[in-house]
Amino acid sequence: MKRVKVAVIGAGFSADIHMESYARFVPAADVVAVYDGHDPKGAGNFAKKHHIPAVYDDLDKLYTNEEIDMVDICVPNYLHHGLCVDAARRDKHILVEKPLCLTLEEADEMIAECKKRSLKFMYAEELCFAPKYERARALMESGAVGKLFMLKQSEKHSGPHSPWFYKKETAGGGVMMDMGCHAMAWFRWMNRGAAVKSVYSHMSTVLHDTDCDDNTVTVVEFDNGVTAVAEDSWARHGGMDDRIEVYGTQGVSYADLFQGNSALTYSNKGYDYAAEKAGATLGWTFTMYEEAFNQGYPQELAHFTDCVLNDKEPLVTAADGRAALEMIYAAYESARTGRSVTLPFSPKVKYPIELWLGK
Amino acid sequence: MKRVKVAVIGAGFSADIHMESYARFVPAADVVAVYDGHDPKGAGNFAKKHHIPAVYDDLDKLYTNEEIDMVDICVPNYLHHGLCVDAARRDKHILVEKPLCLTLEEADEMIAECKKRSLKFMYAEELCFAPKYERARALMESGAVGKLFMLKQSEKHSGPHSPWFYKKETAGGGVMMDMGCHAMAWFRWMNRGAAVKSVYSHMSTVLHDTDCDDNTVTVVEFDNGVTAVAEDSWARHGGMDDRIEVYGTQGVSYADLFQGNSALTYSNKGYDYAAEKAGATLGWTFTMYEEAFNQGYPQELAHFTDCVLNDKEPLVTAADGRAALEMIYAAYESARTGRSVTLPFSPKVKYPIELWLGK
Amino acid sequence: MKRVKVAVIGAGFSADIHMESYARFVPAADVVAVYDGHDPKGAGNFAKKHHIPAVYDDLDKLYTNEEIDMVDICVPNYLHHGLCVDAARRDKHILVEKPLCLTLEEADEMIAECKKRSLKFMYAEELCFAPKYERARALMESGAVGKLFMLKQSEKHSGPHSPWFYKKETAGGGVMMDMGCHAMAWFRWMNRGAAVKSVYSHMSTVLHDTDCDDNTVTVVEFDNGVTAVAEDSWARHGGMDDRIEVYGTQGVSYADLFQGNSALTYSNKGYDYAAEKAGATLGWTFTMYEEAFNQGYPQELAHFTDCVLNDKEPLVTAADGRAALEMIYAAYESARTGRSVTLPFSPKVKYPIELWLGK
Amino acid sequence: MKRVKVAVIGAGFSADIHMESYARFVPAADVVAVYDGHDPKGAGNFAKKHHIPAVYDDLDKLYTNEEIDMVDICVPNYLHHGLCVDAARRDKHILVEKPLCLTLEEADEMIAECKKRSLKFMYAEELCFAPKYERARALMESGAVGKLFMLKQSEKHSGPHSPWFYKKETAGGGVMMDMGCHAMAWFRWMNRGAAVKSVYSHMSTVLHDTDCDDNTVTVVEFDNGVTAVAEDSWARHGGMDDRIEVYGTQGVSYADLFQGNSALTYSNKGYDYAAEKAGATLGWTFTMYEEAFNQGYPQELAHFTDCVLNDKEPLVTAADGRAALEMIYAAYESARTGRSVTLPFSPKVKYPIELWLGK
Repeated sequence: MKRVKVAVIGAGFSADIHMESYARFVPAADVVAVYDGHDPKGAGNFAKKHHIPAVYDDLDKLYTNEEIDMVDICVPNYLHHGLCVDAARRDKHILVEKPLCLTLEEADEMIAECKKRSLKFMYAEELCFAPKYERARALMESGAVGKLFMLKQSEKHSGPHSPWFYKKETAGGGVMMDMGCHAMAWFRWMNRGAAVKSVYSHMSTVLHDTDCDDNTVTVVEFDNGVTAVAEDSWARHGGMDDRIEVYGTQGVSYADLFQGNSALTYSNKGYDYAAEKAGATLGWTFTMYEEAFNQGYPQELAHFTDCVLNDKEPLVTAADGRAALEMIYAAYESARTGRSVTLPFSPKVKYPIELWLGK
Repeated sequence: MKRVKVAVIGAGFSADIHMESYARFVPAADVVAVYDGHDPKGAGNFAKKHHIPAVYDDLDKLYTNEEIDMVDICVPNYLHHGLCVDAARRDKHILVEKPLCLTLEEADEMIAECKKRSLKFMYAEELCFAPKYERARALMESGAVGKLFMLKQSEKHSGPHSPWFYKKETAGGGVMMDMGCHAMAWFRWMNRGAAVKSVYSHMSTVLHDTDCDDNTVTVVEFDNGVTAVAEDSWARHGGMDDRIEVYGTQGVSYADLFQGNSALTYSNKGYDYAAEKAGATLGWTFTMYEEAFNQGYPQELAHFTDCVLNDKEPLVTAADGRAALEMIYAAYESARTGRSVTLPFSPKVKYPIELWLGK
Repeated sequence: MKRVKVAVIGAGFSADIHMESYARFVPAADVVAVYDGHDPKGAGNFAKKHHIPAVYDDLDKLYTNEEIDMVDICVPNYLHHGLCVDAARRDKHILVEKPLCLTLEEADEMIAECKKRSLKFMYAEELCFAPKYERARALMESGAVGKLFMLKQSEKHSGPHSPWFYKKETAGGGVMMDMGCHAMAWFRWMNRGAAVKSVYSHMSTVLHDTDCDDNTVTVVEFDNGVTAVAEDSWARHGGMDDRIEVYGTQGVSYADLFQGNSALTYSNKGYDYAAEKAGATLGWTFTMYEEAFNQGYPQELAHFTDCVLNDKEPLVTAADGRAALEMIYAAYESARTGRSVTLPFSPKVKYPIELWLGK
Repeated sequence: MKRVKVAVIGAGFSADIHMESYARFVPAADVVAVYDGHDPKGAGNFAKKHHIPAVYDDLDKLYTNEEIDMVDICVPNYLHHGLCVDAARRDKHILVEKPLCLTLEEADEMIAECKKRSLKFMYAEELCFAPKYERARALMESGAVGKLFMLKQSEKHSGPHSPWFYKKETAGGGVMMDMGCHAMAWFRWMNRGAAVKSVYSHMSTVLHDTDCDDNTVTVVEFDNGVTAVAEDSWARHGGMDDRIEVYGTQGVSYADLFQGNSALTYSNKGYDYAAEKAGATLGWTFTMYEEAFNQGYPQELAHFTDCVLNDKEPLVTAADGRAALEMIYAAYESARTGRSVTLPFSPKVKYPIELWLGK
């Protein structure tokens, strides 16, 4: 079996999910090294845990010492651009976690660097691979619900654990950057061929001590008349919640990735873990299983590995990540102005959330 | 037991639910007559079915022949104003089905006529009496979910059966008038003391042959920072759906009145009836029971009967109905302009939906 | 309105539910007195809470001072027989809470005393009135699921609070007496006209410090080939659970009275009450509403009140209670012998559970 | 990567699921041939569909032409014994679909043949690998629900499509052989270390034209006091249903593999496929996804492949299959006698169902 040599960039939460996914479900991926420029000790522990043979905190050494086919970038948002451009210049295929980067200018440069070298550049939107959502998409495409007229997607939990998510300098924005990007990408995925016409968003900061948004409702209008509604929150307790609704003129389909896939448990004693960000496990809990698989991570990674191995174009590209980012810009602008914002919309900003905060 | 003499005005779908509710749950109400100015024969059958002693198609005769304490108005929207004002001038206490009327001017006149005679004038928003939703409200008010920051309510089915719902002349608008009014009233009920700051709405006509809206998403902003999201649709198949979500800084509560209260049935043969507007009953169905009770109709009618008997102020008044109507105006305006509309907002219109349609 | 004068016998948990039901839903019942021979002070508080004008701890005084039409017996099992016979001899109509009494001989005497005086004697099996279960029965009777072949009913919680439930001298047995009686009665209710052929039961004591059964599985065979399966437990944590399944050759219907009718709440702070025996309310809980109504108590009490007022035969009689008790005998015998026990089965015992315990 | 050469024996429904599982999730398995002695044409189509290079209807040729490490036996029950013994004598590792075989004598011979050649011999009980059920097991083993006292498992659908399932000569029995075997094996898996003390079963034939059982309830008693309840039916419409309940002294866990993992869809038009044996797709349906994965097939096949490659003992062995078969014997005996049957129980029979049918 031909295999792809992978360097994982980053050793945090999402790198962990990626490693579990590679190890259990992507035999064609051979993770040969992990790089972390900020926490070499953490990276060392990560490498041990996941049996990765080499650890680097120096990019030059990484790329000099190791023969790498693709990099898998799992680091805070503000680092995406630099690491992508660097990897592209070293002729590596790139998978980058969401959101693509902080600004449209960064996105354009990243895309251009990959394009001129004909590198594969995938945007890691796992919802496009979540098997239950993909079943709902197949259903829709088979005509089961008639002509699509509305999509809904929501992702909610009580907020990330790492402090960088809550600062515009490292994250670019709040929950809209962190989780709204899933909705934006998934809406386009479900309504392929249609263009986003406008975005309206209402945002608040209701729970966390941050100037970023932690609760948002966003309405997207497509040029084929489809309406899409996103709800994203860092202020909903009780563990991760990820839901979709697909409305057509002949029917509807509902799916969710967590509670709707869980065992239902009551425990007087509590136990190790119920689901991502679920907190305490006394009393009733929704006990998840195979979280990575159900969210589409292994399928996504297997797909990109296959693209690299067999010279295929990724189903979700950096251009899709850029489009999601443009929608996020529009959402922030709308949240400030109270108006739906028409696309294209590409003002020059340092961080998308500035458009909401007003500077 | 002292009893209230009631005349039911109208003999259609909602009059039917009211009669079932009076008969089974409101012993203090004595329905002595039914009036229907448009379909006397239907009213006759209705009277027979519900054992109502007298039937009228002439208001003067109704009020001359019968000693009436209160009227219960269950007729198409465009008739509310005239029948209310008439009843008020005859010194009858009034319960009027939703929406209150077509325009704010009508509302003002109705309210004034009742006020100057010190009549009880209740706006029949049954969601304020639906026992499951009231349990969620009590929960919220006990602090169980912390400080409220977001409300959601949605009501969806595949569209009313009577043609008058689909015409602006008789209904004043589409699904926003018919079902959005529930959301608007319930948001204010749940967030009492706070004022509506703005309303944004996105509307479409996706399923029915009408120029009225049949699918809407509405975002309401309150002055205490609470966000409220309404979804109302006449384009969702599979039977009536009515749901709420109550988000606070310490928790969340979800409830729904139909699927979440149903038996789950599979039938190879089908059966009489699963739930309001549920259509066919082959295969899997959600079999409702006690629909009127679960939606709060008997509780609402018992409450108004008690108000009339014991000189109490209704918990939901015509002023609340007027406030919901103002929000509907703002929603229609917003749907045309793509902007959130700040309240107060009381343009002069013939029908609220004109604000969306542009004339 | 003609009204029935009621004396409530007992002032504990089930008397409380009955009083709430009378007050809110049975206008024709006029509860004029409460009697409690064991806890007069508790009865006093109970009377105050429920606005009952008179309290007695002496039966002679009760019946001398008050004009009583019917008694509603809500006391520990071992007191049913004596109080029923006494009331019958005073010519009162009788409603008695489940189980009917401790032994078949007691049952026979109670029935005979009422019969010779032509008194109404209802066995208070509320499941025969629970609106959701009655909907499922109507569905079955309409042919929606074809020919019935299997019934299931289970009732589970973590055990009663009063100590008398756990002693054979006061309760006659454990969870089979307390909750198994519901299943036995409901199976016959659903399969009317058919006779019970045999009963098999497996019993254990798994959680409580008692020699009574606290976890049972029972299989009932009817002479028309229908199988019925009961699960009853005092060892299932997480709040009251009451479920049915109705299987026919053309379909199936599932219903439950608690989780399936609840709001779903997550609370970091906890709150007053989620549902009967639900315990702590931190984290996820199933928040019940209208528990008495959903379990059928008001409907049951209204029915008996109507029987007394209008000389109708109760739908569920003491003969049904006796039949359930005979099935319980058979269940206990079976649990000891490991064999299904054929009916009729009426050994002479002091307490039904002796048949399991072996003395 | 070292790979195992597999011959799939049989080209029907379960072979199909195995092939999907190998192809997508078991890279170490290399299916080199399919054999079908009864339907060579069907096997040809099967091979084409699954890209299997060789097709045989002659065992000698299969084993002569191909270098085979393991055989995966997916054929009607009555063929298990012969094919296993044959494969063992040719020194092949063996995975055999459930139930193990028709009789305990067959089981003993199969086990002996493999044992003397030190062959891996796995019993394919996929429930021991279903990820949701395995999560519930881990939960239980972590102490989350306290001390186990009751297990439940049910599997129900409207009956298999192939006629051989309905004949004792080919199947050995009805739904108890076909699906009861899952429950029996899973109970032992969950309660490892404990021995089965007795089995009680009630059986009927309610829907199908067969002399085999199509609806059963079975109560198993373990020597550590655990009770286990199985329900298995070929008479429950609405698509495959597979559920577990795990009761302990400190809590409970519920899980199901189909409805509880599905998207919920309403379609006016119907669509291709909702779930195994779900039939029509008009109206409401539970739309399954990743059925093989959720039932544990890939995990089971990957495990055995790993056992063969790396000389490990399978987690579920033919001895477990034999133990399940002994429990089935006891169930059939019990269904005839109305008594719980104590193990060991190994009467000499031609088909297990004889014990119920009486010869």
